[in-house]
Amino acid sequence: MLTPALPLGEFDIIRRFFSRSQFPSSGVVKGIGDDAAILHPESGYDLIAAADVLNEGIHFPKSTSPHAIGYKALAVNLSDLAAMGAEPLWFTMTLSLPEANEDWLSEFSRGLFEIADQFGISLVGGDTVKGPLSIGIHVLGRVPEGMALRRDGAKPGDKIYVSGNLGGAALALKRGSSGHSVDKDLQKKLDYPEPRIDLGRRLLGVANSCIDISDGLLADLCHILEVSSKGAEILAKSIPLSEFCQEIAQGSVPDCALNGGDDYELCFTVPKEKSDELNKIISDSGIQITCIGEISGREKLIIKDEELAGAGLRISGFNHFEPR
Amino acid sequence: MLTPALPLGEFDIIRRFFSRSQFPSSGVVKGIGDDAAILHPESGYDLIAAADVLNEGIHFPKSTSPHAIGYKALAVNLSDLAAMGAEPLWFTMTLSLPEANEDWLSEFSRGLFEIADQFGISLVGGDTVKGPLSIGIHVLGRVPEGMALRRDGAKPGDKIYVSGNLGGAALALKRGSSGHSVDKDLQKKLDYPEPRIDLGRRLLGVANSCIDISDGLLADLCHILEVSSKGAEILAKSIPLSEFCQEIAQGSVPDCALNGGDDYELCFTVPKEKSDELNKIISDSGIQITCIGEISGREKLIIKDEELAGAGLRISGFNHFEPR
Repeated sequence: MLTPALPLGEFDIIRRFFSRSQFPSSGVVKGIGDDAAILHPESGYDLIAAADVLNEGIHFPKSTSPHAIGYKALAVNLSDLAAMGAEPLWFTMTLSLPEANEDWLSEFSRGLFEIADQFGISLVGGDTVKGPLSIGIHVLGRVPEGMALRRDGAKPGDKIYVSGNLGGAALALKRGSSGHSVDKDLQKKLDYPEPRIDLGRRLLGVANSCIDISDGLLADLCHILEVSSKGAEILAKSIPLSEFCQEIAQGSVPDCALNGGDDYELCFTVPKEKSDELNKIISDSGIQITCIGEISGREKLIIKDEELAGAGLRISGFNHFEPR
Repeated sequence: MLTPALPLGEFDIIRRFFSRSQFPSSGVVKGIGDDAAILHPESGYDLIAAADVLNEGIHFPKSTSPHAIGYKALAVNLSDLAAMGAEPLWFTMTLSLPEANEDWLSEFSRGLFEIADQFGISLVGGDTVKGPLSIGIHVLGRVPEGMALRRDGAKPGDKIYVSGNLGGAALALKRGSSGHSVDKDLQKKLDYPEPRIDLGRRLLGVANSCIDISDGLLADLCHILEVSSKGAEILAKSIPLSEFCQEIAQGSVPDCALNGGDDYELCFTVPKEKSDELNKIISDSGIQITCIGEISGREKLIIKDEELAGAGLRISGFNHFEPR
């Protein structure tokens, strides 16, 4: 490929900022430095593959620190693996840069490898080119054969659960883009989402369906309902709110928790007979997990909360299911 | 992820232009439509992973047809698989679009699936976002365990070979960017490179090292020499020239064939005792394959051609090895 030379040089960038002598995951026969990486998958597993791209000015404001960009670019991809119950293994990255700034690259790669090491995933290849700032990451993970958590497995009677709490990331984005100063801990909710890898893996064989909340709770729950051909009843008041959203909630459920994206918590459904196993997961993992409703056989999403309905509740990004 | 809505809608784009009911490769348990794809690798194989990104105005001129962009974005990635001797299996794509133009998407996806079907590779997932036109593709293929063609296996005495002919793509790019009209067949060399998948697979167990010529013959051969810690002697006159380069060659080897990229032919080395096997590959495949020199133990690239040396031969993109 005729890649225009960056001032620092493509190979310099790779060598100085992205090549590492050791890989945190197993199975890397040959990483960066050939036409492609050579990976060795163990038998007995399915491979899980996902990809997300982050563009400057669209997926993150220009003011975002390079450390946070590197961290988040991988975090949102790991969240997809978490939603499948997968163990992270390897990733490739396409990095488009307007210029080869050493300070930027140093901080970006520090953020990237901070989360890569935390979750034991190895950077094994990619492409570094000149262009508008954009980071494309493609992750590979594995689950025991046939065990992956899918969106299409929800069954009537399944209880619907959400991990952590919701609304913080959307609130930070809203406040920041309207020129308000954003509390440091709130900003962290947007810039440093925590992929729920550990929870996802524990849910294998327990949850009937699972999705990560990237587009907003209602929109993402509707993805489960649509592909499972099911409906749901949820109790709005039970939705776990970020502490920052609680301040503005005033007794109702704010839009940032219902339709705000970027929280990267898991929404999943568990049949009643597996509730003991789920309780064990909750006590073992220490993760906050909240029941917000139940799957029904009718293809309709019913949100039980009179106050909310009166206030003109809306579901963004999806119109197949209607709130009552 | 808070992906801003494109006019046509992200899900519309995926459903209308990129979802397909059948996959040309095996092992796709679940393709597009969940948080990630579920793939089933067979045991006994290594997995080969590569990624390339194409940005508008940098990797292809703004005037390039969307059909050619879709075709080439996958072709350059398949070429990486070819250089490893891999069988193509699956790919993910991150597509950044300034607007959701139906005609553009229709032609782009037609070009993409034309080559995908030709080589039996399945699109299994990705991400579609708003932004400057950029296509990131990550491919996965497989080779029998431990058999991948690597850059670092060249041995002294290996003959050096090149598939097809060189210089056409670089000549087309040069003529086009200087405002000249470009012959249709010459333009095709740049827009529709042919990944040498079949040849790569046939070379498993025969070639000691292999690379695809994306940066230019001399630069890419030097990559083999560097990681193999070897040198080479090549005869400039033996380098196979594109018919279009022959016209301008006038007895010497033009720069477009030595340093021009984008041809995506294979450069590989074969030990003398495997020459019968290589001859069989040549006659079975019908692919033009030319011996251009030999690997030596001295870490030096010697180009035998007095006329060339006198004309100030240069190697672009690499300065560790010097021509004599």
